Amino acid sequence: MNTVPKTKLGPSVITEYLQRVVEDLREVEGGAVKDSIPALANADPNPIGIAVATVDGAIYQAGDSKQEFCIQSISKAFTYAQALTDRGMDGVFEKIDVEPSGDAFNEISLQPETGRPANPMINAGAIAATSLVKNTAHGTRRERILRLYSRLAGRQLRINKTIHAQENRSGDRNRALGWLLSSRDIIEGDPTNALEDYFAQCSVMLNCVDLARMGATLAAGGVNPLSGERVLSTQVVSDVLSVMYTCGMYDDAGRWALKVGLPAKSGVAGGIIAVLPGQLAVAVFSPPLDQHGNSVRGVAACERLSQDLDLHFARTERNGHSTVRSQYYLSEAPSLMRRNDAANEVLEEHGEDVRIVELQGDLRFAGAETAIRTIREAARECAYVLVDIRQVDDLARYVMPLLGRTSEQLENAQRHLAIIAEKGSEHTQDLDHPVTVFPTRAEALTWAEDEILEKFGGPECMPDKVRSTDSDLLSSLSDEDVEEIRSKTTRVEWPAGTTVLRAGQRFEGVYMVVSGNVEITRRSPTGERVELEVLGPGKSFGEVALGTDSRHMVSFTTITDVVARKLPPEAVDEIEKTHPELALRWWRAVSTHAMRRIEERWRQQAGETHTTD
Amino acid sequence: MNTVPKTKLGPSVITEYLQRVVEDLREVEGGAVKDSIPALANADPNPIGIAVATVDGAIYQAGDSKQEFCIQSISKAFTYAQALTDRGMDGVFEKIDVEPSGDAFNEISLQPETGRPANPMINAGAIAATSLVKNTAHGTRRERILRLYSRLAGRQLRINKTIHAQENRSGDRNRALGWLLSSRDIIEGDPTNALEDYFAQCSVMLNCVDLARMGATLAAGGVNPLSGERVLSTQVVSDVLSVMYTCGMYDDAGRWALKVGLPAKSGVAGGIIAVLPGQLAVAVFSPPLDQHGNSVRGVAACERLSQDLDLHFARTERNGHSTVRSQYYLSEAPSLMRRNDAANEVLEEHGEDVRIVELQGDLRFAGAETAIRTIREAARECAYVLVDIRQVDDLARYVMPLLGRTSEQLENAQRHLAIIAEKGSEHTQDLDHPVTVFPTRAEALTWAEDEILEKFGGPECMPDKVRSTDSDLLSSLSDEDVEEIRSKTTRVEWPAGTTVLRAGQRFEGVYMVVSGNVEITRRSPTGERVELEVLGPGKSFGEVALGTDSRHMVSFTTITDVVARKLPPEAVDEIEKTHPELALRWWRAVSTHAMRRIEERWRQQAGETHTTD
Repeated sequence: MNTVPKTKLGPSVITEYLQRVVEDLREVEGGAVKDSIPALANADPNPIGIAVATVDGAIYQAGDSKQEFCIQSISKAFTYAQALTDRGMDGVFEKIDVEPSGDAFNEISLQPETGRPANPMINAGAIAATSLVKNTAHGTRRERILRLYSRLAGRQLRINKTIHAQENRSGDRNRALGWLLSSRDIIEGDPTNALEDYFAQCSVMLNCVDLARMGATLAAGGVNPLSGERVLSTQVVSDVLSVMYTCGMYDDAGRWALKVGLPAKSGVAGGIIAVLPGQLAVAVFSPPLDQHGNSVRGVAACERLSQDLDLHFARTERNGHSTVRSQYYLSEAPSLMRRNDAANEVLEEHGEDVRIVELQGDLRFAGAETAIRTIREAARECAYVLVDIRQVDDLARYVMPLLGRTSEQLENAQRHLAIIAEKGSEHTQDLDHPVTVFPTRAEALTWAEDEILEKFGGPECMPDKVRSTDSDLLSSLSDEDVEEIRSKTTRVEWPAGTTVLRAGQRFEGVYMVVSGNVEITRRSPTGERVELEVLGPGKSFGEVALGTDSRHMVSFTTITDVVARKLPPEAVDEIEKTHPELALRWWRAVSTHAMRRIEERWRQQAGETHTTD
Repeated sequence: MNTVPKTKLGPSVITEYLQRVVEDLREVEGGAVKDSIPALANADPNPIGIAVATVDGAIYQAGDSKQEFCIQSISKAFTYAQALTDRGMDGVFEKIDVEPSGDAFNEISLQPETGRPANPMINAGAIAATSLVKNTAHGTRRERILRLYSRLAGRQLRINKTIHAQENRSGDRNRALGWLLSSRDIIEGDPTNALEDYFAQCSVMLNCVDLARMGATLAAGGVNPLSGERVLSTQVVSDVLSVMYTCGMYDDAGRWALKVGLPAKSGVAGGIIAVLPGQLAVAVFSPPLDQHGNSVRGVAACERLSQDLDLHFARTERNGHSTVRSQYYLSEAPSLMRRNDAANEVLEEHGEDVRIVELQGDLRFAGAETAIRTIREAARECAYVLVDIRQVDDLARYVMPLLGRTSEQLENAQRHLAIIAEKGSEHTQDLDHPVTVFPTRAEALTWAEDEILEKFGGPECMPDKVRSTDSDLLSSLSDEDVEEIRSKTTRVEWPAGTTVLRAGQRFEGVYMVVSGNVEITRRSPTGERVELEVLGPGKSFGEVALGTDSRHMVSFTTITDVVARKLPPEAVDEIEKTHPELALRWWRAVSTHAMRRIEERWRQQAGETHTTD
């Protein structure tokens, strides 16, 4: 139950941090607003907005993060993405190279031999990229560009008509670039339409939150974290981020790489977007620009965040060392199957022939390498290696084939690999080499134990059935007492899959298993069915409610056909009345049996505490 | 025990993969060996070597990975690192810019205004970088450069004197660059010494394994994975990798960023090194070069590995979603403290007032953001949030202060945050805001339970002591029976810290706790002391060996001063002889008690199976 009243916690520490950054940015001086068009020349230089959007869909913002500004050159990255989507990298590469030029953004220069713009982040390349976006039945080029931006941001964005008109009026230098591109057949025919659309895309209005969400969609490999919609392919996103990395900050690319280390794009209205693949995007807005055309405070903010939060690509600490969650021998964590003494003896002798390796986290190359190395090391001394991948989050597509091939290598050396994976896990579906797969650790352990018992144990280790007097429950009693108690029991049998006793039922007798297996289960608080024990011939169940009026807290289900002897409550009552001395010995036997189970559990509990290497 | 004979498994699947890559590379045609000096012009164009070194110290290699070649321009990256170490980034930046030039590597051009070479990866910048390495009392410039390379590689490398002489003879263009640098005061005075040292550094011999290990040292942030020695600072490594990213592949940087997406450096002898920060380095060697001066097959190999193994920086799938290992309420995983019924009732009512959040993996920004968001969500409905960071591998330095501030925010809203961290964990040392820290989950849970009982329970919930007849063990017996049994007991007491019964000892009686707390522990297979239960007043211990000749499998230690009643074995024997009916009821009571404990364990076991959200 929950008895706590609701409360408000105030802004997250991450929001507080961004608020401090904005305050500190107010102290940063210098730069001038762009004067190319009146809307920019007359802009208030003071607003500062910042937003961070994560690939989980979280957003943090501070300052003027909701103030709209026009996207300007930041649009180049996204339109390039649409061109790549429409034409493929080869089709686009024919027209636009991907090399940093070292030139200013509006330089009038094309590669002498090919006529290609150096990259799609300078104006010449951006105009060419716009021209490569198709007019289709589903929308004109301009509509499709606007739709892409909107899907990336997760809301409908609009073109500011005043700014568009101003861009158009002052666009002569860009017109010159357009005609130059036409002269070299980079744009086919009249460039006017492409130029119009380019002016329009530069005039799209958005705020820091929109821009951060657009970046987070790139960070998430093209899937909008909020809508879950795939907006761009992984390949296109990778290509766009690569070009942003080397060319996004114009002739400041090298310093940016050093100080920030994130792919980014700036616009002359004062916006900057920076993307940390797999994690987040940062959007900043502050109009005054430096000599490269980048927002002075925007650059300062990105340097600050990269430094404070270690976002720089080269600052990744080592990955993969948390891949192996734990590893241990069978002897330290036996299966849930309650075996007889003969079996336990054999398993004890071979308890280090089986190694369990639990993996976790993301299995990309470094993780896979660690996993495979760990498996190979285990296989040097163990005949069976059980690899539990249920706690693995993300598994690169090439990892399962590598595990499959490793399994084959192990088998050639008389070793065996088994994988523990969720039922129906996609990972285990397309293995070249078939690997034994189990859905639970319990089943994998039981399998390995059975293998060992088959190889090294006599038939007494895995009895198909026991004599009806051979019950662990009665093992501390004399033959005479056992026979007396047996005479009060009746034979019962159930087919596989029968729930013999359900949690919540009252005591209705003690069952001593003669043949077959019974599983003890319970629902976890979150509703999952948890296997607690598996009982074979010689084991008993139902006695936990014996002598009390409490209800069973667990369910008992047959997993094979089962034959058992049932000792009903009346029989216990009768023994207490007519044979008080036998009753005393019976209760002592039951006590002793229960105590041994408590001890077993303690041993298991101590064994489960594994350390991660 | 282990009974498995040793075996050989053959090469790892990763080695097999590299062998396939080398085979496929033999099909790649084109390129020509460099003809600048005889040693290069006469080189056999056929060898192909590849090596991958991980930050864990593992190495995989194929082909001619042990064939030596000369480092040539790859040296530029490492000498730049030494210059940064000697002069700091500011001192170096004054003399060498960090911008991609778009020019060929041996272009004679300096920035018009400052005279600085565009970056340290073109020859002009590299010669300037060499000149910035200091001659010190610990070695000449040349010795110190060679020593750095050797420490990065983990073995002593040598300069090839023949090649050095040839470089010297054909170095006129570089001499011109040297004098040009002197003319602009980038090099002070005569550049001859710096040029000599530059020719020497280019003539260092190594193989793919050496080069991969040098790269792995960069990938590991400057610490050689094999020797564990810190060779370069994290900052210098970050700066060098940043410059390699934008300038390492000369005028092919953009295409490289697109296709490979790793910081890299090539040399005209045919070597390439590429680094995936935090994970690994790839070294390839194959002499024929393309028009940019990069190894044709080396580039092909890097593109292939980046593609096959998703090494591209922009290809990172989302991080951080595995941060929250599991989360659950107190009711699903109560403490090990065995409470009385009154306490259990209160705790049941408030079982969802406490939330446990287990974190794992690396807590960098994305992980920290997820963790803080999860804590805040939990605090909306829970008064206590217990955060277990013991499975966290790497914790960015700013994370604990953020957790500290979050704790403060929670307290302002009458919520409480406690952290579970290893004893002496560095993470918990410099918190601005003091956060309650516990070394084990058991202690944190007991604390939260005690807080709840103090707030909501009566004094009966946490009795300092019970009457000597109030033992759970006897709770199913009549007052008369209890009194009879009590009369057979004797009073015992121990100070805190006494081990009352040690694992391995035989049964020597049942102890019923009157006041104080006793801890049940057992050694895990790996030798750790595992806490199993904590017993307070009203609980009993020692009875698990009752009626058997088996030895205790656990130890019982007082954690406070303890008073108990002891029922010795003789007393049980006597009751059986003289009061058989009481003996029957006694054994039934012991049975019932044991059965309840088995049920308790089942419930706990089912509760422990948490799913990761």
